[in-house]
Amino acid sequence: MGQDECIFCRMAAGGVPTARVYEDDVVLAFLDIGPLSDGHTLLIPKQHYARIDDCPDDVLASFCSRLGRVARAVVAAVEAEGYNILCNNGRAAGQLVEHVHFHIIPRRGGDGVFTSWPAYRYPPGRIEALAKMIREHL
Amino acid sequence: MGQDECIFCRMAAGGVPTARVYEDDVVLAFLDIGPLSDGHTLLIPKQHYARIDDCPDDVLASFCSRLGRVARAVVAAVEAEGYNILCNNGRAAGQLVEHVHFHIIPRRGGDGVFTSWPAYRYPPGRIEALAKMIREHL
Repeated sequence: MGQDECIFCRMAAGGVPTARVYEDDVVLAFLDIGPLSDGHTLLIPKQHYARIDDCPDDVLASFCSRLGRVARAVVAAVEAEGYNILCNNGRAAGQLVEHVHFHIIPRRGGDGVFTSWPAYRYPPGRIEALAKMIREHL
Repeated sequence: MGQDECIFCRMAAGGVPTARVYEDDVVLAFLDIGPLSDGHTLLIPKQHYARIDDCPDDVLASFCSRLGRVARAVVAAVEAEGYNILCNNGRAAGQLVEHVHFHIIPRRGGDGVFTSWPAYRYPPGRIEALAKMIREHL
C-alpha cells in the first residue's frame, strides 16, 4: 500500500485532521475517534509498516521508546488506574488499518472494557513441543 | 518488590522451570502456561520494572526491539494468520504479575479469542478537550 492510500500515513503527513497529543520525527500519537475509554490513544511510527513483524529492529526500538512517555501523559490526563497497550497484527487479530499502531487504552477497575480472558491448559508434553517449534524458527 | 519475590525475575535468573523460546542479555521469552491460543508467548525484560511507564526510554527501546523477531518465530511455528501484542499495566487493566511483559497471542480468523471491542463516539468537543489535557502532560 502506498502512502497516498494509507489513512495513518496521511495523518502523519498532516493531510488529515487529527486530535494530536504528541509528535516528533519518528512517531505521531493521536486520540482514537472510536475509543474504548476516554483518552484512548494511538501511537504510530511515521514510516509505513503494516505489522510489528515488518518493522526492522531499530525502527521498533525508536518507535516503542516513546510508549512510556505517551502512556504517562494519557494516564495523568484522565486519571486512569491502569492501561492496556495493544497492537493487533493482521485481520484475524482485529487489525483494521494496515499501518502498525499501538492502542493505549486507559482503564479503571470494573470498567468492563476487556472482560474476556479465555485461558486454558496445555495437555502434557504440548508446551515443550511448542517451545521447541518456536525455537527452531529463531 | 525485590527480585526474590517476583516470579518473572526468578524465571529470568533461571531459578524456575520455563518453556523458553528466546533469551539474550536483555530479554527472556517463554510460553504462557495459561495460553489464550497455542504458542501464546510472553516477552519480558530481564531487569525488573512493574509497568511500561516505569521503564526508561532506552530500556523500552532495547526490550521492544525484540518483539518482531519473537513474533515472526511464534507465527511461523504455529502457522498463525495474525497475532495480538498486549501489555496490561496495573491491576485495573488485568495485570497479574507486576513485572512488565508483552503477550504475543497467535490468532486465526474466527478463533473467538478476543471478540469484544466496545467502541463509542465522543460527544462534540470532547476529543479536542482530551487531546489538550494529554498534551499538557507531555
